[in-house]
Amino acid sequence: MTFSTRINEAISRTGSVTCVGLDPRKAQLPSPLRDAVEGQSPDAWAAAYTQFCCEIVDVVKDLVPCVKPQAAFFEQLGPAGMVSLGEVIRYASEAGLVVITDGKRNDIGSTATAYADAYLGSRAGISAAGGDPATASPWGSDSLTVSPYLGQDSLEPFVEVCDQRAAGIFVLVKTSNPGGGYLQDLESDGKTIYRSVAELVTQLNAGRLDPDGYGPVGAVVGATYPEQLAELREAMPHSVLLVPGFGAQGGAADDVKAALDASGRGAVINSSRGIIFAHARKEYADTFGDARWQDAVRAATEDMNAQLGAVV
Amino acid sequence: MTFSTRINEAISRTGSVTCVGLDPRKAQLPSPLRDAVEGQSPDAWAAAYTQFCCEIVDVVKDLVPCVKPQAAFFEQLGPAGMVSLGEVIRYASEAGLVVITDGKRNDIGSTATAYADAYLGSRAGISAAGGDPATASPWGSDSLTVSPYLGQDSLEPFVEVCDQRAAGIFVLVKTSNPGGGYLQDLESDGKTIYRSVAELVTQLNAGRLDPDGYGPVGAVVGATYPEQLAELREAMPHSVLLVPGFGAQGGAADDVKAALDASGRGAVINSSRGIIFAHARKEYADTFGDARWQDAVRAATEDMNAQLGAVV
Repeated sequence: MTFSTRINEAISRTGSVTCVGLDPRKAQLPSPLRDAVEGQSPDAWAAAYTQFCCEIVDVVKDLVPCVKPQAAFFEQLGPAGMVSLGEVIRYASEAGLVVITDGKRNDIGSTATAYADAYLGSRAGISAAGGDPATASPWGSDSLTVSPYLGQDSLEPFVEVCDQRAAGIFVLVKTSNPGGGYLQDLESDGKTIYRSVAELVTQLNAGRLDPDGYGPVGAVVGATYPEQLAELREAMPHSVLLVPGFGAQGGAADDVKAALDASGRGAVINSSRGIIFAHARKEYADTFGDARWQDAVRAATEDMNAQLGAVV
Repeated sequence: MTFSTRINEAISRTGSVTCVGLDPRKAQLPSPLRDAVEGQSPDAWAAAYTQFCCEIVDVVKDLVPCVKPQAAFFEQLGPAGMVSLGEVIRYASEAGLVVITDGKRNDIGSTATAYADAYLGSRAGISAAGGDPATASPWGSDSLTVSPYLGQDSLEPFVEVCDQRAAGIFVLVKTSNPGGGYLQDLESDGKTIYRSVAELVTQLNAGRLDPDGYGPVGAVVGATYPEQLAELREAMPHSVLLVPGFGAQGGAADDVKAALDASGRGAVINSSRGIIFAHARKEYADTFGDARWQDAVRAATEDMNAQLGAVV
């Protein structure tokens, strides 16, 4: 079963298009976890990150189709953090969640192949592709976010590995930050750069479609630009969209409706801080606080599912 | 002492603009190292990568100003490889080499800050910036390669950390691969995308120049496009250039001359495979072979220095 089929089936099974972003940050960990390691070594912090993320997985695994660990926050702890990232990916994958590793990696030629070989290929994916699950990739992720600045020949090695391991990538097309337009919105021959990237994404999916018409090459399109989201949904009919910017960054449920296909699938909407640090949000702090942070995560996830469900 | 001053002084001290790329690859390790770990765990391979790279550092530390570990190959081993990357960066830094970590990282806002905090800041840099060397960054690198696709507000967090820790970044401007032009050569209002990125780089250096006129924001410009290299040297007078594509990718000494300033500084020319796997090149295989691979590394480094010295 290809990556696109796996993620769409996970959406159907959970009735949710929410993706929970796993962005552990020292200063915002719930106090029971933070206080236990404050002032200690990176190894101790890394263990706290692992515990934090794995407890979130336990809470959300029946509520959402996927999680998105953000590599940067694990790398911020140095090598110990990368050990934690590996543990979190494996734990989430074994819990049945589709894992999107947010690394925004890329490089040229054989170096791109090294990144693809490193990250792409969970046990589930490699088994689905007819390979030996014991040879899953070192990080064991179902998918990876990838930057397009280096061009077509930097993306092709990732697509080849996707084919071999029933994995997926999400190419940055239109990002959610205010400055994203600096390059992405430039026009060449009447066409924006993000649109050129979208066309490349569609080309890369050609000949690789699952029965529902989706391919392994997804795209990142921010919730903060609803018009472009609608434009890009149409320009990339074969791509699962990963939509960041919901919640803390300002995107609302109505803004992201356009990302989904007629069956309410084909996209996942990410929220990171709004869910994982819900214990500090005023809606949840009084009821749950730091002590019951896991219940705050559950409530915030259910609330996001309800908000998205109301518009779909 | 700022990053740009440190790298230019290292060029003067060694009389070399060669950057040795540390790209360990399983299949190409010299047989004494490879045979000892073939079929073994990622931990065993990671130890072999560490040994390989640290021995290269021992050979080249008096011959070149800097080394560039390529994160992808370490990540390909999973978490064990990242432990090795940390060891290699520290070893090279303690040997007095300037370290350019080639990770092509980036993300938005506070996530970009996490990457900057993770990688930027060697003991030497943090000491030069007036900070406590004991608080060097987790990876302890002097500099990091960074992708510009997410725009200006994704680069600014890196520049802020550069200021605090006397560190540097190298922004991808014009890459050395054949497909790099897919986006980079598109023209908007008569200006190429790579040129727009170059102008952003120059803006980011404003107010941050060392006495020689260089700032913390360097740029990656491939050796395989000599005309654009000359154009970009002029467009980014305040940037140290990191020039990949020499040797194995086809760039020659005459092609890269334009990267250097009038004093023969302001740029480093990278070679990875051509130096670190010199034992397998026909020029060196008969004399040294796998058994004396370190001597092949030394000979290839000295030959590259001589080739570059002849045109400067």
